[in-house]
Amino acid sequence: MLSSAELRGLRSLRDKKHREELGLFVLEGEKAVRDALAVPFAFEQIYGTEAWTGERTQFVTPEEMARLSHFPTPSSVFAVGRVTRPPLPAGALERGLSLALDGVQDPGNVGTLLRIADWYGLDRVLLSPDCADLFSAKVLQASMGSFARIPVHTADLGAALAGLAAPVLGCELEGDDIHGLPALRDGVIVIGSEGRGLSPAVAARVTRRVTIPRFGGAESLNAAVAAAVICDNLRRPR
Amino acid sequence: MLSSAELRGLRSLRDKKHREELGLFVLEGEKAVRDALAVPFAFEQIYGTEAWTGERTQFVTPEEMARLSHFPTPSSVFAVGRVTRPPLPAGALERGLSLALDGVQDPGNVGTLLRIADWYGLDRVLLSPDCADLFSAKVLQASMGSFARIPVHTADLGAALAGLAAPVLGCELEGDDIHGLPALRDGVIVIGSEGRGLSPAVAARVTRRVTIPRFGGAESLNAAVAAAVICDNLRRPR
Repeated sequence: MLSSAELRGLRSLRDKKHREELGLFVLEGEKAVRDALAVPFAFEQIYGTEAWTGERTQFVTPEEMARLSHFPTPSSVFAVGRVTRPPLPAGALERGLSLALDGVQDPGNVGTLLRIADWYGLDRVLLSPDCADLFSAKVLQASMGSFARIPVHTADLGAALAGLAAPVLGCELEGDDIHGLPALRDGVIVIGSEGRGLSPAVAARVTRRVTIPRFGGAESLNAAVAAAVICDNLRRPR
Repeated sequence: MLSSAELRGLRSLRDKKHREELGLFVLEGEKAVRDALAVPFAFEQIYGTEAWTGERTQFVTPEEMARLSHFPTPSSVFAVGRVTRPPLPAGALERGLSLALDGVQDPGNVGTLLRIADWYGLDRVLLSPDCADLFSAKVLQASMGSFARIPVHTADLGAALAGLAAPVLGCELEGDDIHGLPALRDGVIVIGSEGRGLSPAVAARVTRRVTIPRFGGAESLNAAVAAAVICDNLRRPR
């Protein structure tokens, strides 16, 4: 049973500004919390009703859950985690493969892109400051636990990519055929927003223009699909 | 200026049942209508306000548009098209590449999958009867015009895939590495729903199990991403 002070404190997490002041995020939903626990991700608190069969720090009644939850139809679990925003270590982009998202504002897309980066074993994901926030519920949920597995850094991409020796790959309509690309050990794949593409500052840092060959009539592929096809080609044994 | 009878008739298209009885669908939004017109798709009617610069059959005022539109914030265009549901020609699946969607209920995913099939120049898309409806606003919009470019058939997949000589590719965790697959001229790629995967009736028809190699920790890729990576590998020159 939660005290009314605890309940009040937890309910205040509905307010994004308040979460940010406390440096906390909230994850709800059995699948999402289970995915994160499997990584394993260490939550600060996990509130579960009787229906929740996973790890928990505190039992709550369905009535309490209804008051905690940010959703009209609450799940059986409400987990609170600590927001971490590790700075990008100097020189990190020279080693391994990175995925850099430039102004990807749709949270579902950001989550899906984290999942793709994780599937292909990339070393890190960079988010420009105008991407959807990593710790928003939709990004966390769409990432299916990948938010806890792959290092994510927020950085000014124009500055982070300046003077890089490793290639910076940008997807364009008139680039080198991705099917002919050699396997890459080090490099940064930059992906722009669906609507506007790459920002000028990031486009100026692209050193390797690549193209996904098209065989039909569609004008474009969506950002997540393009990223996955590029990753698949880079990881393909030669 | 629309007569009140016309306006009433058009407003009745908000009702899905009514649209189906009339065999009509509605597409709104400048980008979506422009994409379809570029195919070109022949709409029955295109109602545009002064702000709409594309093809139109009838001019409407912003006030009339507000009454027509299915959205609280209408765009400058409201297009009405005829629903067509061509039957799958006998033997069609033996020739060329087909994408078969088995119970993909998310309309955004169905639209994205149509766009992918179109990009990779597949010959047709099959939808199981429990997929999101092709002519729903979200499917049409997410397809970005591809709904009008690639033949789409609704069919009982278990029956349609029975006794096929062309290979039926299903994505599984323990299949043949897609990177080692030969280029395919004929075949059907089956994609299941995100939550439940392939239905038993369709899984039983898979004759070629394939796997997208994983290099990291994510448990899965989403349906559209998996389909695109498979298509890219099948289309890759050997």
